[in-house]
Amino acid sequence: MELRDCNPKILKDLKKVKNALVSAAKEAKATIVDISFHEFSPFGISGMVIIAESHLSIHTWPEYSYAAVDIFTCGDLIKPEVAATFLIKEFESKSPSIVELKRGILSPVNGKLPHKITDPELAPVI
Amino acid sequence: MELRDCNPKILKDLKKVKNALVSAAKEAKATIVDISFHEFSPFGISGMVIIAESHLSIHTWPEYSYAAVDIFTCGDLIKPEVAATFLIKEFESKSPSIVELKRGILSPVNGKLPHKITDPELAPVI
Repeated sequence: MELRDCNPKILKDLKKVKNALVSAAKEAKATIVDISFHEFSPFGISGMVIIAESHLSIHTWPEYSYAAVDIFTCGDLIKPEVAATFLIKEFESKSPSIVELKRGILSPVNGKLPHKITDPELAPVI
Repeated sequence: MELRDCNPKILKDLKKVKNALVSAAKEAKATIVDISFHEFSPFGISGMVIIAESHLSIHTWPEYSYAAVDIFTCGDLIKPEVAATFLIKEFESKSPSIVELKRGILSPVNGKLPHKITDPELAPVI
């Protein structure tokens, strides 16, 4: 997603950017595995939400009122379009665009790649 | 990147996948900010390397000998194509493909978006 003409105050607020991505993952019915957000100097935020169904990422350039968001999902249960709509609203983007890329098209017979099975006993390795 | 026909043994080895992505980031001259890798049950790995110049991500499906890799970069100094070539070799992909997407094309006058300035005093917020 190209989120142009966003509210730059939101794009430079670490807590708001993080909450927006985490909420978007939840709205999409994703299973969150890890969260990592970083603020850069003088401004700009990068963050990732790893989900059992792949990931959400964001990089913000408040000086251009612009954020680049990726919503990478797999499996049949997740609703990436819900996350997309939610984030356009959260960042107040007045000129958003979305490009959808099909990944993992391995043969004419395989359908969607399955999501991962989360095992709470497997501790995150960071 | 679509890495098809990889060595499935490598795709299910958490340490090897992590090392490959981290090394790819270094080969591309990226500044690493955070690393997060997760192993799923029964197999499959998801991981992210956040860099000052955006991120690298991977999701592996060893059962299909397939990995989806994103190399998201900004700025003029980084060499994403070096990371791409390195990863094709590391995962022994016999049928790789690459799609390049331009991001942050905000106006005819703006060039590449700048990379972030890393500040060692800013502790990662996880």
